[in-house]
Amino acid sequence: MKVNAERLWARLETLSEITDPDRPWTRRAFTDCYLEGRAWLKREMEAAGLTTRLDEAGNLIGSLLGSDPKLSPLVTGSHIDTVALGGRYDGILGVLAGLEAVQSLREAGITLRHSIEVIDFLSEEPSEYGVSCIGSRGMVGSLSPDMLDFREPSGERLGDAIRRMGGVPEALSAPLRRPGDLAAFVELHIEQGRVLEDRQLPIGVVSDIVGIHRYDIVVTGQADHAGTTPMDLRRDALAAAAGLIKAIQAEAYQQSLGESYLVATVGRLDVSPNASNAIPDRVGMVLEVRSNDAELLEGFFPPVLEQVQHEVWAEGIGISVTPLSEGLPTRCADAVQSHIKAAATALELGSMTMPSGAGHDAVYMAKLAPTGMLFIPCREGRSHCPEESITLKQAADGCGVLAETLLRLDQGNY
Amino acid sequence: MKVNAERLWARLETLSEITDPDRPWTRRAFTDCYLEGRAWLKREMEAAGLTTRLDEAGNLIGSLLGSDPKLSPLVTGSHIDTVALGGRYDGILGVLAGLEAVQSLREAGITLRHSIEVIDFLSEEPSEYGVSCIGSRGMVGSLSPDMLDFREPSGERLGDAIRRMGGVPEALSAPLRRPGDLAAFVELHIEQGRVLEDRQLPIGVVSDIVGIHRYDIVVTGQADHAGTTPMDLRRDALAAAAGLIKAIQAEAYQQSLGESYLVATVGRLDVSPNASNAIPDRVGMVLEVRSNDAELLEGFFPPVLEQVQHEVWAEGIGISVTPLSEGLPTRCADAVQSHIKAAATALELGSMTMPSGAGHDAVYMAKLAPTGMLFIPCREGRSHCPEESITLKQAADGCGVLAETLLRLDQGNY
Repeated sequence: MKVNAERLWARLETLSEITDPDRPWTRRAFTDCYLEGRAWLKREMEAAGLTTRLDEAGNLIGSLLGSDPKLSPLVTGSHIDTVALGGRYDGILGVLAGLEAVQSLREAGITLRHSIEVIDFLSEEPSEYGVSCIGSRGMVGSLSPDMLDFREPSGERLGDAIRRMGGVPEALSAPLRRPGDLAAFVELHIEQGRVLEDRQLPIGVVSDIVGIHRYDIVVTGQADHAGTTPMDLRRDALAAAAGLIKAIQAEAYQQSLGESYLVATVGRLDVSPNASNAIPDRVGMVLEVRSNDAELLEGFFPPVLEQVQHEVWAEGIGISVTPLSEGLPTRCADAVQSHIKAAATALELGSMTMPSGAGHDAVYMAKLAPTGMLFIPCREGRSHCPEESITLKQAADGCGVLAETLLRLDQGNY
Repeated sequence: MKVNAERLWARLETLSEITDPDRPWTRRAFTDCYLEGRAWLKREMEAAGLTTRLDEAGNLIGSLLGSDPKLSPLVTGSHIDTVALGGRYDGILGVLAGLEAVQSLREAGITLRHSIEVIDFLSEEPSEYGVSCIGSRGMVGSLSPDMLDFREPSGERLGDAIRRMGGVPEALSAPLRRPGDLAAFVELHIEQGRVLEDRQLPIGVVSDIVGIHRYDIVVTGQADHAGTTPMDLRRDALAAAAGLIKAIQAEAYQQSLGESYLVATVGRLDVSPNASNAIPDRVGMVLEVRSNDAELLEGFFPPVLEQVQHEVWAEGIGISVTPLSEGLPTRCADAVQSHIKAAATALELGSMTMPSGAGHDAVYMAKLAPTGMLFIPCREGRSHCPEESITLKQAADGCGVLAETLLRLDQGNY
């Protein structure tokens, strides 16, 4: 079977252009622009022969019935929300390729044994409510009452926002679906990194989705006058923070040479008082460590911290650390990985097995069913920025492998 | 002769309490609060027997006639403006101790040969107009027409602000005073550092006022996804900036072990995009180098920069540098230093010779006449903050040495 690459590409173009006109390409969840995108998607799903509904977590689900009513559905999908000034393909590729795969199957007269669902998960990107993956969390019962009470800056509760999107927040205290309710889940996404492009490979088979540990770090010194305080009397929080950043980078580089995937980043840093003539007394920063190896992930920061704390203690510098989140890696099902790899081979597309360094809705779907992900390259690895770019051929390759994978999953014991 | 320590202390308390009530201790130049402080000071000067006037640069000058009209005046003073949330003693000590010294001389029936002027210089601290030392610059003809056109955020020109303070901006295209118009200048100030306190010495004799070189530094990398970009494919601007900060600190520490004074500080740093899940693509920072040795000052940064640029070039990191200011050190007159030292010895007060790491109005006065400065300790070296603190005894010691120095200068060939 063959997917319709031009139709897929036209839909990617159309949906990406449903954007906040002043800030392309921006389609933040919970906005009017987002609702406009969803209304368009619902019409496209229905025109392709899918039945649509919203679930209680605000996920938009398009379904095609299979021939065997005893089987749980095969599920694919992703999300159509973006970060601010985010890209044209992150998320929507997985939704629209799922739709295209199902439509192509139908047009080819192929009826699967399993029903298929194409899901547009609500608000995968970090939202104004302080939570990401809202729809997929909600589906598996991972939206706590606390989270539903989070408010965005103008005061709206997340629960109320979900209701505004058509969900039923009261129903989210229990999982909407339980293990066994899905036969399998597979998600196509752009890589958001440069590995596939560097190796000139069209398909990445995801082995695991990294766990993320985030730490809030505060380095404390003393804000003295930058002119009158000799070097040996200083307690310079920024100089100490610089030492910690260098130590983190060096250790992460060393560990990344091993078999497992590990990256560590200080992306956020704020200096106080941040004046050219004042020695900084406080540096706040956020360290993010990601790895597909739980042991490596948990073991990375404590020894680096201890060593640097020991080094700066004598200078009167304090370093305090608060863990912000401690997510564990998600392993993709071996069987789903094998099907994706075989599908790529069948289509004569080169592939490699690789971890996902970014989080995805698949993390939550993995709690319900055997789950896999596949990647296509994106130009220069750029993502979450206006320059995010893929080609029609790359999108079509990914969609073809997704369709082929669904066919193979349909023939398995799921 | 003896100064009246209680009267000096009472005036310090009274003037420091003329503050923006919501942000103690704040008396920004050009505000109503500043004008209130100046009105009080003018009354105190006149009550003490001084004649007052404003000069064309907006400096408030209190004068006491000497016995020999052929001699140029001896001048002392400092400033009564503060930084936001600045301290109670920075600046006002030098003005009020000058007033107290002159009043005590007068009460002791001592008439000097020289007239004495006590000057409250307009706006010594960095102002909203982007210029510091406005009054002392204006006095020596260092306020360029460009500077007089600088505007503060709400749009007022500096020239108009000087007029509002009682000055005559049109008159500032030429120096108000020329070399020879002053016999000598001496300024008392709090140290704003911890050296005197650490050594338990009541008096610092300033040898030179450091020159300041400021550089605007921009480190440029690439903003990739913090999860999906392996360590070896990164161009992390913050990690590179951290290396530069460490190299600057290490080199400054080494050089500070030599005979000359040198400090180097990165006090201001801004990260872009400053998100925990994005590798920073841009770090902007300001480096400030201060030294009393012109050669050391100019030679400090270029080799550090070159070495670090070389190290990060292969990683695709760029470092660009724009000099912001390149002020040279100011040498205090040997004769004035000797008089201050002898005055301290006569009052049985220990002293040490030290550079001033901060800039002062004395930098501009040194263009007109033999100039000196003396310091007293301040608690923990804290300054430009609400915690800035001195004792009555420390203030009285400084005032006594200032008065004694003026007496000695009066007997010299100035």
